[in-house]
Amino acid sequence: MGEFQRIARLRELFERPSSAVILGIGDDCAVLAPSGRPRVWTVDTAVAHVHFDTRFTSLEAVGYRAFMAAASDLAAMGATAVAALSSLILPQAFSDEELDQLADGLARAADACSCPIVGGNLARGSELSLTTSVLGECEDRVLTRAGARAGDFVYVTGPLGGAALGLRRLSQGVSVGEPDLFARAFLFPRARLDLSRSLAERASAAIDVSDGLLSDLTHLCRASGLCAELELERIPTIPGFAEAAREAGLDAQNLVLSGGDDYELLFTSSEELPTDLGTRIGVPGAGVPEIILRDATGTQLELPTSGFDHFR
Amino acid sequence: MGEFQRIARLRELFERPSSAVILGIGDDCAVLAPSGRPRVWTVDTAVAHVHFDTRFTSLEAVGYRAFMAAASDLAAMGATAVAALSSLILPQAFSDEELDQLADGLARAADACSCPIVGGNLARGSELSLTTSVLGECEDRVLTRAGARAGDFVYVTGPLGGAALGLRRLSQGVSVGEPDLFARAFLFPRARLDLSRSLAERASAAIDVSDGLLSDLTHLCRASGLCAELELERIPTIPGFAEAAREAGLDAQNLVLSGGDDYELLFTSSEELPTDLGTRIGVPGAGVPEIILRDATGTQLELPTSGFDHFR
Repeated sequence: MGEFQRIARLRELFERPSSAVILGIGDDCAVLAPSGRPRVWTVDTAVAHVHFDTRFTSLEAVGYRAFMAAASDLAAMGATAVAALSSLILPQAFSDEELDQLADGLARAADACSCPIVGGNLARGSELSLTTSVLGECEDRVLTRAGARAGDFVYVTGPLGGAALGLRRLSQGVSVGEPDLFARAFLFPRARLDLSRSLAERASAAIDVSDGLLSDLTHLCRASGLCAELELERIPTIPGFAEAAREAGLDAQNLVLSGGDDYELLFTSSEELPTDLGTRIGVPGAGVPEIILRDATGTQLELPTSGFDHFR
Repeated sequence: MGEFQRIARLRELFERPSSAVILGIGDDCAVLAPSGRPRVWTVDTAVAHVHFDTRFTSLEAVGYRAFMAAASDLAAMGATAVAALSSLILPQAFSDEELDQLADGLARAADACSCPIVGGNLARGSELSLTTSVLGECEDRVLTRAGARAGDFVYVTGPLGGAALGLRRLSQGVSVGEPDLFARAFLFPRARLDLSRSLAERASAAIDVSDGLLSDLTHLCRASGLCAELELERIPTIPGFAEAAREAGLDAQNLVLSGGDDYELLFTSSEELPTDLGTRIGVPGAGVPEIILRDATGTQLELPTSGFDHFR
């Protein structure tokens, strides 16, 4: 198919009715209905060989993950999704069937986020990449990284380390046939838009865990001018995590602290919150260093090298 | 520099005060102030070796052009610019100095469009690419491709073919030292945001000339369910165009009709408009084919193969 036929095909796959959208794919721009609320806006890019490996990630999962990684940033701001644009760079040899698989993954994630894809761009290039721009809307209050205060608790909305473990298992060929919970955490993560409005009311600061707990907590602490003490044993993981990590030859603690790609929300709140909103994993600390890690007995543990820096 | 230092550097280069922006670069999302008006939204991608060649295009021009190509879509909707996100895929070897040059071009174009860059993404990849997402705002009426009616005139806001000729001259080494008008039309095009509000009031339909006159006029005609007759001699060109085309070994007529990259606006209106808004180049035609081309004597001319299809 030519470019214009491919755009027509994507329009078929992506088009959804939405009261927020006056005009979707097909003109120079999408048109969004007026809104009296603050809007949040971000973009995220996934590049072949850097962010995903199609040898053990289906193109559907590539599309799904790319979309969720962008939508997760909306959740971290306490917003709900309005609409998305999807820009694809496709290699010359990329077939129409492959584009359909990629688009299916994007569309499935967009549906799960109630976030219609209203436009985008197709370009040719040597390397597959997906750039997803998402727009969200806040009720009144916008949640940022900067609102945490001394006396708050540190929470996380779900298990960490599972996606990084799943990636390793997939690359080892453990779960390619029948993806297990770990592989699914990597292949089909969910942006926590289900919790974002509740957190906008009750959290003081938030960030999504994309780079890894220590890296993202450091961003939140710096933005808030705060330190944090984490209690390692409190950090939730998927059942069977420690054993599966051992099997894969990985250090469970390192996965939990620096794994990334889980897209749970890390947030602070002065309230004691119900467990369906989040698990308390720490408290504000005093002075430098920014993050202190302790075991259940209160003994301070050494921090591993944190996060993932694309340009390090 | 590492990823986070590079983001801090880009923040320095891009940050501008704007009443439409509550929060710029630095959190999970940018935050935009509420607005009671319809907003238009689009994205455009420029890929090395496909859309630009750094052997004869400075990185500053690469950034400038990439931004203007996206902003031009706002102009085509009759909108003014609100803000932009810039996503870059950078090769491993891309230096901090190169990033500065690229960002300077982006920032210069953003300033020329009064469109602050409020966020983006940095990723590593094998091939340089720039994906620019822009958000604009309409007064009340949104201009689309679909509003042209029988009885309208066809206009263009400025000279066509100059950018394609400039590209050829640059690739031939003619204007690398001191870019002439043609090279400048390619390297530093301007999105016609200066005219967009006037056109929103007076035009019936519009599109920007990015792929080439015939290709883009076909889109407008199809969306409006209309045909068009163009008069070749009326289409404006940069002074000296025909001679420079001959020098470069190119067919002037083909450049004007299919050149692309000029980012002037092609629009229709039922009014006779002042020449500072646009030059009348045609009238609605009758029936199929969609576009008829005539010379000054009224003789029908053959149409060249139109436009540029990335996937043809």
